[in-house]
Amino acid sequence: MSGGFVLDSRLEADTRHLTSLPLCDVRLMNDARFPWLVLVPRQPQLVELLDLSDEASATLWKEIRHIAAVLREIVPCDKINIGALGNIVRQLHIHIVARKEGDAAWPGPVWGSGRAQPYGADDLHSLAERLKRAMDVSG
Amino acid sequence: MSGGFVLDSRLEADTRHLTSLPLCDVRLMNDARFPWLVLVPRQPQLVELLDLSDEASATLWKEIRHIAAVLREIVPCDKINIGALGNIVRQLHIHIVARKEGDAAWPGPVWGSGRAQPYGADDLHSLAERLKRAMDVSG
Repeated sequence: MSGGFVLDSRLEADTRHLTSLPLCDVRLMNDARFPWLVLVPRQPQLVELLDLSDEASATLWKEIRHIAAVLREIVPCDKINIGALGNIVRQLHIHIVARKEGDAAWPGPVWGSGRAQPYGADDLHSLAERLKRAMDVSG
Repeated sequence: MSGGFVLDSRLEADTRHLTSLPLCDVRLMNDARFPWLVLVPRQPQLVELLDLSDEASATLWKEIRHIAAVLREIVPCDKINIGALGNIVRQLHIHIVARKEGDAAWPGPVWGSGRAQPYGADDLHSLAERLKRAMDVSG
């Protein structure tokens, strides 16, 4: 199914694997400024959303909505930001970010805003576990 | 169908109506720096993607893919950026932007980047007409 899929090295360095849905790996951005998840469809050579088949595209949409709902449930926030940019890392990946009024980039976008602030090990573990539990329960 | 829907005044000021799809109005951002379309579902009180019913959500996804394909066909570009932010204008709207390497915000996001540079009247008309034709043909 995922023959030929290799995760981009920058995504691998910046994020931590949480779970694998039918189409996408769900990864947590290691940036304590924003609760920030990244979905990466496990298919080789995807760049644009338009590169997905209709079927895979429908699955992606379902997974985006599922993960956005989980994030909103686990992290109190004022707005969910969703984006597929890929100007720097071309491998197709979708950002789902919980935003709070007054957070480090508010009201601007998180992309390209300042430097990531890595979580402490305990905080990373604790948030990852809470997200994983919620994904399993409602997935 | 669209009882109670009122377009946010800021979206109305910054964009120009191109066409109405079954769910969304498609509007062109009046910013010559980036070919930039905005989809606005014609339902009242939408803020998050999660506020849509499953059926409306599936329609939105179809319209996003359609409009992204039209934009890529009409405007040569290196990357399509898609985003739903809503930190400033809360009414649900989805950005679909054609990006070129070296454009005014490259490789950063367009949101919050500098000031809009309005099109000349002829350029705006010509781009709007080309986009409308392509939307009608392939919609």
